[in-house]
Amino acid sequence: MRYRALPGFRDFYPEEMATRRWVERAWHRASHEAGFAEIDGPVLEPLELLTAKSGDEITQQLYVFSDKADRQVALRPEMTPTLARMVGARAAALPKPIKWYSVPQFFRYEKPQRGRGREFIQWNVDVVGSAERAADAEAVAVALRALEMLGIGAGDVVVRLNDRSFVSRLLRGLDVSEAEEPAVLACVDKLERDERAAGRLAELLGEPRAAEIRAWCERFPAERADELGPLLEALADFGLADWVEPAFGVVRGLAYYTGPVWEIFDRARKLRSVAGGGRYDGLIAELGGPPLEALGFGMGDIVLGELLRDLGRLPEAPPRAEVFVVPIGAEMLGAARQVLARLRQRGLSADSPYTALRVGRALKAADAAGARRAVLVGADEWADGCVRVKELASGDERVVRLDELD
Amino acid sequence: MRYRALPGFRDFYPEEMATRRWVERAWHRASHEAGFAEIDGPVLEPLELLTAKSGDEITQQLYVFSDKADRQVALRPEMTPTLARMVGARAAALPKPIKWYSVPQFFRYEKPQRGRGREFIQWNVDVVGSAERAADAEAVAVALRALEMLGIGAGDVVVRLNDRSFVSRLLRGLDVSEAEEPAVLACVDKLERDERAAGRLAELLGEPRAAEIRAWCERFPAERADELGPLLEALADFGLADWVEPAFGVVRGLAYYTGPVWEIFDRARKLRSVAGGGRYDGLIAELGGPPLEALGFGMGDIVLGELLRDLGRLPEAPPRAEVFVVPIGAEMLGAARQVLARLRQRGLSADSPYTALRVGRALKAADAAGARRAVLVGADEWADGCVRVKELASGDERVVRLDELD
Repeated sequence: MRYRALPGFRDFYPEEMATRRWVERAWHRASHEAGFAEIDGPVLEPLELLTAKSGDEITQQLYVFSDKADRQVALRPEMTPTLARMVGARAAALPKPIKWYSVPQFFRYEKPQRGRGREFIQWNVDVVGSAERAADAEAVAVALRALEMLGIGAGDVVVRLNDRSFVSRLLRGLDVSEAEEPAVLACVDKLERDERAAGRLAELLGEPRAAEIRAWCERFPAERADELGPLLEALADFGLADWVEPAFGVVRGLAYYTGPVWEIFDRARKLRSVAGGGRYDGLIAELGGPPLEALGFGMGDIVLGELLRDLGRLPEAPPRAEVFVVPIGAEMLGAARQVLARLRQRGLSADSPYTALRVGRALKAADAAGARRAVLVGADEWADGCVRVKELASGDERVVRLDELD
Repeated sequence: MRYRALPGFRDFYPEEMATRRWVERAWHRASHEAGFAEIDGPVLEPLELLTAKSGDEITQQLYVFSDKADRQVALRPEMTPTLARMVGARAAALPKPIKWYSVPQFFRYEKPQRGRGREFIQWNVDVVGSAERAADAEAVAVALRALEMLGIGAGDVVVRLNDRSFVSRLLRGLDVSEAEEPAVLACVDKLERDERAAGRLAELLGEPRAAEIRAWCERFPAERADELGPLLEALADFGLADWVEPAFGVVRGLAYYTGPVWEIFDRARKLRSVAGGGRYDGLIAELGGPPLEALGFGMGDIVLGELLRDLGRLPEAPPRAEVFVVPIGAEMLGAARQVLARLRQRGLSADSPYTALRVGRALKAADAAGARRAVLVGADEWADGCVRVKELASGDERVVRLDELD
């Protein structure tokens, strides 16, 4: 009988795993460079923690079940509830601002499709306890720095940004009330990718006001966007002016955003957003945490992986071993193991067959492992405390004393 | 309202996360050095995959539930079923031996206690497609190499090993049948840690035969253990003779082990086993994979963490930032961000307050972040393209041109 993985779940074979780790390394490095410390929380959380934040399609897509003690639990679909809990538990002791990041796996029960599986790895970066736009700008900078490390530049992607307080002010100017705003934002959020959104917006507000909003989405009402000034200035300080552009259509549909909101898109606009974030000043308290301002972003591995593939920027698979040790004859297997142990002790990645292969076959195995060098362990040289080192690219060979091998 | 993590689940704050990553780095490095490639599989698997391997207490401790399509699914409690599936799906294409490792999180619904939570991180190392004892020895060597990287030596832990084919031969000599063997092994496995096991063994076999087995556990019947010879020899080649000792009581209770079996214990014997492994030649096929020999081990993070704590070998928390940039006055915030961007671009970890703090307070924040150096950005020096660099340990200050800052 042959089993299969569940639909929407991925097996990571060595090649896919190497790519995943390469991406994650950029996330870790960009986070550490900017002084963010890594955290993690449980994959499984109490249902009531995950559903405390209402008005969110995420909670309809939860993997939820009862455990053996009849607790309602669910696989985490995002990090913010866990973050709020962790900040809340140590709020008094933690120096502010709190700069944390994480690289968890998330789960959503939705129809698997391009750019969306039922699990994904997501980089989360959050700042808790600062109302400054400099913090928002830093988060954008960290996201872009990771992309840069992966070979993605300002010609490949754009940060489209907006400010929810600016949006609210403009909507008030159109006589859209606070109560009407969430439904309007949900439409605006979908205007660019869902044809029906324009119709729904017109239904809600009447065609004249809907047309005004659609015009803002076409051409950002920049002359009045005082709210975006400090953020854009801070981004320019970070040298990122080329990467960003105001976009009124980016409002991040969810109710809890309160300030800057932004998404990173491929410039070709073939994919969903690569990353998205914003300021959510009331949310930590709503989730049971302390009343601290906060902002953050998430960057998932799936759309990013598609972008890297589309751009041809995925790296080649790394070698499985740098050095391949070849015993010449079965009686040299023990000696080969001694050589292996010595090489590994020096931090080299070294492999060797478990049985004595013919040399030609062993060198093929060395090649398959991606090794750049073979160490041939033969009886004659071994008697003199030596081995033969063969450079696999050039074929050059030389005899080396064992204690000089590196 | 304040939420809590589920019982048996851990929040990883920055300090705990740094320790976890430090341990994981040793696992990754030891694996790569020995030519093992990393894989991963889904956290959630179909129930029938996880229960295909019978006779195992693991399946009674599964986190199992029905998903929205009424599939029976469970959180993974171990890696072998996933490994068997992944090997099976590409068995023909994969060169043998297959050397894979993984660092997944596992889940078991059991009573949380010292050394056992409901989730843990486990390093898994497997070799598929080799019957050679050299492969078993290499697995032991990889496990010990990781411990060595964590500062644990042969004086701290011991690999207690045995061979299931040797055990079977001796049991046949006592007229214990193949059918009786699993129950006997389950007792032997528990002799050292459960007082009732001796009684159960005597019930099964009668006191004379039980006494014989207990004597073997006290003093390994080494003179007849031909089965262990090649393994011990290969371990000696790896320079590991000091770390290992034959132990008849180590049989790894589970039915599927077929050859060498081993566990790593702290020499003080205060803890559960730090790692355990063995050869399971028939299991891959039993789990739906191809008929390939295999062996492997697992090393979890919880007992290992306790051992490191007991031995006082846990590292200090790493600094959150190496360099701390201090704007002198609010008008220098933008300049400070430019300095930050430059330092980070060079791969340094650099942080800065979002608002202009008084210098004394900023230097305290630098200290709290663990920084070794502060960069003071003041208007006068900045006008000359310079900043002031202060070594925080010595207090030494010097003025440095911005383009020479590193």
